Amino acid sequence: MEPGKIEALTYDVFGTVVDWRGGIARDAKALLGGEKGLSLDWNAFAIAFKERSKMAGSPEEAAARAERSIRADDLNRDNLRETLEEFGVASDTLTAAEFDWLATAWHRLDPWPDSVPGMTRLRTRYILAAVSSGNVALLVAMARRGGLPWDAILSAEVTGYYKPRPEAYLTAVDMLGLEPAQCLMVASHNDDLRAAAACGLRTAFIRRPAEDAEDRIEDARAAPGVDLAVENMVDLAERLGC
Amino acid sequence: MEPGKIEALTYDVFGTVVDWRGGIARDAKALLGGEKGLSLDWNAFAIAFKERSKMAGSPEEAAARAERSIRADDLNRDNLRETLEEFGVASDTLTAAEFDWLATAWHRLDPWPDSVPGMTRLRTRYILAAVSSGNVALLVAMARRGGLPWDAILSAEVTGYYKPRPEAYLTAVDMLGLEPAQCLMVASHNDDLRAAAACGLRTAFIRRPAEDAEDRIEDARAAPGVDLAVENMVDLAERLGC
Repeated sequence: MEPGKIEALTYDVFGTVVDWRGGIARDAKALLGGEKGLSLDWNAFAIAFKERSKMAGSPEEAAARAERSIRADDLNRDNLRETLEEFGVASDTLTAAEFDWLATAWHRLDPWPDSVPGMTRLRTRYILAAVSSGNVALLVAMARRGGLPWDAILSAEVTGYYKPRPEAYLTAVDMLGLEPAQCLMVASHNDDLRAAAACGLRTAFIRRPAEDAEDRIEDARAAPGVDLAVENMVDLAERLGC
Repeated sequence: MEPGKIEALTYDVFGTVVDWRGGIARDAKALLGGEKGLSLDWNAFAIAFKERSKMAGSPEEAAARAERSIRADDLNRDNLRETLEEFGVASDTLTAAEFDWLATAWHRLDPWPDSVPGMTRLRTRYILAAVSSGNVALLVAMARRGGLPWDAILSAEVTGYYKPRPEAYLTAVDMLGLEPAQCLMVASHNDDLRAAAACGLRTAFIRRPAEDAEDRIEDARAAPGVDLAVENMVDLAERLGC
């Protein structure tokens, strides 16, 4: 890869930029553990909540059904309802306002400690765009709270396609007025990078061993063929000369 | 209007936030006047270039023909070609690279002096979204160059609709996860504000007497019915308690 050709960094967000497991577990524990006195495995709860967004290819299928993408905020309400049921939490445990608060815990995820320092350096030279399954309102709230310096939010709600469909990457690249080879996809998930590479984007793997606190054999290290493998976002800034 | 209900400021950009006339005249003069030695009325040239984007309802018609919106960057190439012809500039005067540079002068427009200071204060409390006819690449380049602190770019290319169609305003509001009455449309053009108000948005008129250096009778002052009328963006921040 020639860094000089890169004009934009297209970012996966959940896991790559922010700690979804820690944030969901924190808010679930605060509400269900603290106020409601329940004792659950909060990490397992967070992982189950997240996994539901993948189940039965739900965003993909939902997008196909609706032609335009379904909002993550709406999917997350369904996913929370099912997760609460799975963990044996009675449906009248939460008030409507409490349910809404926990369903939108995704708006309140914290960046990994290196994310903002690294991205702030990277932004001096490169356009930073979020290419995520999160909807605009969610990603705007998360960015304002955590100080994420996006130039553009080009997520599924904007492009009309969920990753790993090629259109999700290619529409974002096109909206930036660039060629795929001028964009570096940054993600902690090899499947995301593989799909981006198949569209002609360059790829950077960022290792996030704490992402789901399980044996992440698939994403423990960069798959062969990735252009860059880095330890964190500051490391990426160093490697790209920022 | 109750400022406490407002969550987001939805902004017109050309004329309201940036000085399109001054920027286009500057770059046209630098290239056609300086290097090519032509002597034209640069203000008139800028106004003619801009006016073409309104002629025959071109963005509207183009959007209707294409279903999805046509890019401002593409329209501006056509508009520049016609403007050069109108001003008697021979078609071989500019190289392809020079033509591209002048066609994308819209990427290099300067903010009005009060825009960044006022918006920076406003952003501490409100979401700032660009609701413009500019395409994503254009608005990203302009924001990076001028330091415009957008939270989101929800322009025609993203929403699929040009102002003043109701869908242009309502899709942006919906993507922000808000109700129309929670959004304040900020513009220096009464027709834009009228269309936004008809969709239920609140409206702020900002006076930009230098916008096109002509008698702007229509936009010399706020039309009746506008919620707020301000002198500049810092004044708007004061009025909204930021």
